[in-house]
Amino acid sequence: MIVIKVGGSEGIDLRALCMDIAVLIQEGQQLVLVHGGSARTNQVAAQLGHPPQFVTSVSGYTSRRTDRETLRIFEMVYCGEVNKGIVEMLQAVGVNAVGLSGIDGRLLEGKRKETIKIVDGTGRRMVLRDDYTGTVEHVNTALLNLLLANGYLPVITPPAISEAGEAINVDGDRAAAFIAASLKADKLIILSNVPGLLRDFPDEASLITRIDPAHIGEFMEHAQGRMRIKVLGAMEAIEQGVAQVIFADGRIAQPVHAALAGRGTVIGAKPL
Amino acid sequence: MIVIKVGGSEGIDLRALCMDIAVLIQEGQQLVLVHGGSARTNQVAAQLGHPPQFVTSVSGYTSRRTDRETLRIFEMVYCGEVNKGIVEMLQAVGVNAVGLSGIDGRLLEGKRKETIKIVDGTGRRMVLRDDYTGTVEHVNTALLNLLLANGYLPVITPPAISEAGEAINVDGDRAAAFIAASLKADKLIILSNVPGLLRDFPDEASLITRIDPAHIGEFMEHAQGRMRIKVLGAMEAIEQGVAQVIFADGRIAQPVHAALAGRGTVIGAKPL
Repeated sequence: MIVIKVGGSEGIDLRALCMDIAVLIQEGQQLVLVHGGSARTNQVAAQLGHPPQFVTSVSGYTSRRTDRETLRIFEMVYCGEVNKGIVEMLQAVGVNAVGLSGIDGRLLEGKRKETIKIVDGTGRRMVLRDDYTGTVEHVNTALLNLLLANGYLPVITPPAISEAGEAINVDGDRAAAFIAASLKADKLIILSNVPGLLRDFPDEASLITRIDPAHIGEFMEHAQGRMRIKVLGAMEAIEQGVAQVIFADGRIAQPVHAALAGRGTVIGAKPL
Repeated sequence: MIVIKVGGSEGIDLRALCMDIAVLIQEGQQLVLVHGGSARTNQVAAQLGHPPQFVTSVSGYTSRRTDRETLRIFEMVYCGEVNKGIVEMLQAVGVNAVGLSGIDGRLLEGKRKETIKIVDGTGRRMVLRDDYTGTVEHVNTALLNLLLANGYLPVITPPAISEAGEAINVDGDRAAAFIAASLKADKLIILSNVPGLLRDFPDEASLITRIDPAHIGEFMEHAQGRMRIKVLGAMEAIEQGVAQVIFADGRIAQPVHAALAGRGTVIGAKPL
């Protein structure tokens, strides 16, 4: 079992990914796809007069400020435009995809953070209370296995759902890591618009090709911006028993085959 | 088995519907929910600078002009905002809903119309070729039964999918009729923002309370605008073996229980 996470950043070739997935399925691979939609959400939110805001937690992670109106737009883009766009592309190449958000069937359950402690641009600490964000703590693997056993490819997107039944924005990379661990997947492949983890971002020649899982924490210093949370997700996946996490390039042809051949940053055992 | 269709018009109380569904499920009813999202699509399309257009076919039915950009917005609203909004409301009242578009798992398969013959405001006939609309011709009942058998409530929305794997806009009422017939449902309840079929629209006192299925065609003359296609859907459901179709009020508390008690326009056998 391989869990593939694909970001929503510009440059990512979703059509190439869908064609690659069709080949992998013909080769007998069991797959689950998780996707984001951050860049498009920014555009649509601006168009709808509710421009995106980002906050930085006191521990240094950046996340989207998610009030109820942002959540509505988030669902339009992630669950509507992006999810159905990917499902349609997969169907067009013969993959019987089923798109699901974390709300559907309580697929991704988590705890809503009652408050978020953030640091503003001037270093001042603030507490947000009307934010709908959280972290995935439980995956409905029964629903995923039901679909997989019946020949469907699950295509999963945030938001998740809280115990109280509220939609909550969760990080897609960490959600994918949690899904991979819950499904006891062998591999988690995280595709973005860079070739992997870079020693000197954005110099693509500085690609880190291998990381010993025992030393992954030391590599956090090389992670910039959004890549920090991807490294956190990778650490969480490895800690929970996923043998291999690969950060790989989502802009190229056959991106999953390339990742499986060792192109990218491979964390864990040697590539196939 | 009851298939419930709820429109996306203003005034419809989705929260009351979701609470009613929770009670029906506790009472042991097997349900499938189908929804629209037309009014919100009009608003969002206007906000995004791609205002809605409607066309009238030569046979007199009104439908949304669906170019590729409209389809993108349509999916944002129907599959994102509205579908996930309803699924979240159902989850909050303890119903384990799973939202699906017709693309997911090829749930609603249909034929894309190669051309659409329309009549413009001056009576002139025109042919549209870049439209993505069609009619449902096959329902993946295996997927619906799989979810129902495992305790999930399917919440279904257009678009459907063509044989070539393209998303196509299909009428929600006729899709619901086809789903009801395919699932061999006993009843199809169509909730909108009127009490049922009105003899003199919009006079709500002119409600037609019973229609003999053998004479449903004669009632088409009373149907105005969007109600015409609802009557067409009802005819199709009855022809395909659904025993009872009820047009009922989606603005009231316990709308499904009210419909089952005979409030609305009942087509077919006597109400329970």
